[in-house]
Amino acid sequence: MSKGLPKRSEDYSLWYNELVKRADLAENSAVRGCMVIKPYGYSIWEKMQAELDRMFKETGHTNAYFPLFIPKSYLSKEASHVEGFAKECAVVTHYRLKNGENGEGVIVDPDAKLEEELIVRPTSETVIWSTYKNWIQSYRDLPLLVNQWANVVRWEMRTRLFLRTAEFLWQEGHTAHATAKEAEAETLQMMNVYATFAEDFMALPVVRGRKSANERFAGADDTLCIEAMMQDGKALQAGTSHFLGQNFAKAFDVKFAAKDGKLDYVWGTSWGVSTRLMGALIMAHSDDNGLVLPPKLAPIQVVIVPIYRKEEEFDAISEKANEIMAELRKVGISVKYDNRDTHKPGWKFAEYELKGVPLRIAIGPRDLENGTIEIARRDNLTKSQFELSSQPIAEKISGMLEEIQEAIYKKAFDFREEKTTEVNTWEEFKDVLENKGGFISAHWDGTPETEDKIKELTKATIRCIPLARKEEEGTCVLTGKPSEGRVYFAKAY
Amino acid sequence: MSKGLPKRSEDYSLWYNELVKRADLAENSAVRGCMVIKPYGYSIWEKMQAELDRMFKETGHTNAYFPLFIPKSYLSKEASHVEGFAKECAVVTHYRLKNGENGEGVIVDPDAKLEEELIVRPTSETVIWSTYKNWIQSYRDLPLLVNQWANVVRWEMRTRLFLRTAEFLWQEGHTAHATAKEAEAETLQMMNVYATFAEDFMALPVVRGRKSANERFAGADDTLCIEAMMQDGKALQAGTSHFLGQNFAKAFDVKFAAKDGKLDYVWGTSWGVSTRLMGALIMAHSDDNGLVLPPKLAPIQVVIVPIYRKEEEFDAISEKANEIMAELRKVGISVKYDNRDTHKPGWKFAEYELKGVPLRIAIGPRDLENGTIEIARRDNLTKSQFELSSQPIAEKISGMLEEIQEAIYKKAFDFREEKTTEVNTWEEFKDVLENKGGFISAHWDGTPETEDKIKELTKATIRCIPLARKEEEGTCVLTGKPSEGRVYFAKAY
Repeated sequence: MSKGLPKRSEDYSLWYNELVKRADLAENSAVRGCMVIKPYGYSIWEKMQAELDRMFKETGHTNAYFPLFIPKSYLSKEASHVEGFAKECAVVTHYRLKNGENGEGVIVDPDAKLEEELIVRPTSETVIWSTYKNWIQSYRDLPLLVNQWANVVRWEMRTRLFLRTAEFLWQEGHTAHATAKEAEAETLQMMNVYATFAEDFMALPVVRGRKSANERFAGADDTLCIEAMMQDGKALQAGTSHFLGQNFAKAFDVKFAAKDGKLDYVWGTSWGVSTRLMGALIMAHSDDNGLVLPPKLAPIQVVIVPIYRKEEEFDAISEKANEIMAELRKVGISVKYDNRDTHKPGWKFAEYELKGVPLRIAIGPRDLENGTIEIARRDNLTKSQFELSSQPIAEKISGMLEEIQEAIYKKAFDFREEKTTEVNTWEEFKDVLENKGGFISAHWDGTPETEDKIKELTKATIRCIPLARKEEEGTCVLTGKPSEGRVYFAKAY
Repeated sequence: MSKGLPKRSEDYSLWYNELVKRADLAENSAVRGCMVIKPYGYSIWEKMQAELDRMFKETGHTNAYFPLFIPKSYLSKEASHVEGFAKECAVVTHYRLKNGENGEGVIVDPDAKLEEELIVRPTSETVIWSTYKNWIQSYRDLPLLVNQWANVVRWEMRTRLFLRTAEFLWQEGHTAHATAKEAEAETLQMMNVYATFAEDFMALPVVRGRKSANERFAGADDTLCIEAMMQDGKALQAGTSHFLGQNFAKAFDVKFAAKDGKLDYVWGTSWGVSTRLMGALIMAHSDDNGLVLPPKLAPIQVVIVPIYRKEEEFDAISEKANEIMAELRKVGISVKYDNRDTHKPGWKFAEYELKGVPLRIAIGPRDLENGTIEIARRDNLTKSQFELSSQPIAEKISGMLEEIQEAIYKKAFDFREEKTTEVNTWEEFKDVLENKGGFISAHWDGTPETEDKIKELTKATIRCIPLARKEEEGTCVLTGKPSEGRVYFAKAY
């Protein structure tokens, strides 16, 4: 199974691609850039969805569904949005096929051309704001707090499973408010929801920050983001939350009557995370043996493997395994008993390591005699004997799952801290970027030109202006001009 | 609110359209045939999804996700499938827009033409079976039991919210088996899952049956279905489950090695239900005041409305309302306290009737004095006083919700029975169809020609050959030729 998984130290990129395929998470489809999310991968995504959806609902949002197709002309209505999104996208031009006449098979019916071409949504601001126009008349209709779970398409030229695919799954929140202040608070709230989700569930520490103007969402006045650090020292943007100002309200003429009867444009936000989070989850924690999953998102949290030679041993072990399963299920732990006789224990051990099951319990005849089981942790590959009479099994396992969740987080946190370097000169900047990687905390003069120049010279971009940065005057690492504070640079996915 | 909702008896079709819009379930979008599912409508769909998903998982299925796009040539690989689906569908021909040169705005970039056009999936058999080819090698890989929740597109010319839309949401199960027998059992099992869901959750009685060859899914050897009866006497197909034989396995060369090493093609099934179920749910139970929802699928099961004149009355009522809410929530009942001071009680009563909230509790100052509340049932519009000391409130409300669930089912069941008529002559057939509607149980000679002729003459189609039909010889209602049993005819959505 895990035999032959490339090593991270030798080829991180190949390691990732192979891991995604071998752990049955996803694979490329016959359609360029579109992936198949396999059942095991999808079951992790479902757990992520469930938690996020709960968090959205707890903050007052409801789900809805808007059309897949967007009239081409809609994209042009918001001036900067069109620059960002009216580019690489799937265009529907016809609505019918027919049988060709010269034995050429099925062809596109030239008579079934659409009057206006449709775009497969790359994001839904335009179609949603065109709808909000009819939903919003008065302050009583606000705030409008809507989310949708959907597929979107961006015709990417270079694709990688989960990280960058032509079609991907995501959620996109679209809210409307009576005041700028409220919309800004919503933007911040949802960025914090994403950060909490990343840290508490994905065990992924993130930097909460603001994008520079260059990296802002096309159509936003402000973009907040969470940035994570992968094991190869590259950054990954894990979620964004946009303050849209009145840009889309103006583009689609969405006005509301305030209490005093005055008409004004509505203030908007949008925010999203996608199946890209799967890529972040995989790359942040996994090792050369396979996936490492945080217990809170693992579809199977505990697997029990019987070790036996004779049939009667198997029966006795199974009885014990069933007892343990019942105890664990009672407290909501997801557990699988792999009693297949088609595979040897060693093969199973490797398989569940590859798949990132957080805890593995092995039970053999001697364990039955001694009243013990062997518990192996996936994250640090340690094994221990556990005496069943010493503590209720559900309590023991719950405790261990919590420990693992914390340990994975701490490991990723320490790694990120170690990979975050303050630099003060351009020489240092280049040296750290080349030899160490990670986040580079450096002064920047605040201009798009300098940002572009640094990107051109080094491929590093400003990942974010950390919200928590201390006030510190300095001079730009490239131009020597004055700077108001440090920002985070990194090469990024 | 509900003022002005058209009456069912006067214009059933208009009543449906208006109800869907006014109850905030869905609306048409700017893109022809594509709907917006509004938050309230979507919250009902979410409840349906959750139950169905649970039932799929309990029968051993897992979810996955397959691409939105299908290469045009895939549709031609299965001979009868292409006849059914390579017709009205959205065709992607280009992958880029660009700015036009003559001030014409954004145009399709003629240089970005796809080598092979892509179809937006109308159903996913082809793309899934092309994937299964790589997933299935041996009997150990079977059965493969996969479902996906997805959007699909069929370019319908005449659309109606939920009932027939160009884009709709659905689930499609696609399974692969080692034997025909197993695949047939799966086909039957999933039809039964749908029937159980319809009856137990939607409170919608259904006829379990088999489609005639004419009405079979394009690419299937056998199609099972559930058929429901709407209040206007028209039938609605609520779900289908297809036995695909080895058709798709042959089309995509999916073979497996049996235990004895022999290679054979895999046997397949597919099965689906869609947002069309929303249409069935609405049309089956609702009345001239608005929606009637079965408690098991109602997003809000109980609403509490305070009746007061003075502020101090409001506070005391709110205290009681909060107590009741806490009790109800403890047992998992979804309850809302509508304490808005912007709307009068009468307005609220009408609103929650329109939205189909199963139970409404009203509390006024006199109720506080007497230790009572008023409980109104949405389904039969009856009201009763309830003495709070007589029974725990959670027990009372739980009991009433169950009663309503049963009463709605029974009403729909009785209606269907009343609207099911056995006929033995062609005159009777036409008379019942024209003057009574509903299911017509009649003998048919078993030929597609007769079926076509009846459809041409009357617009009625064979809805299904009921699985539970008794053996009864007879003569075809149109041709007088021998028949082996009765089938159900009806006009249908």
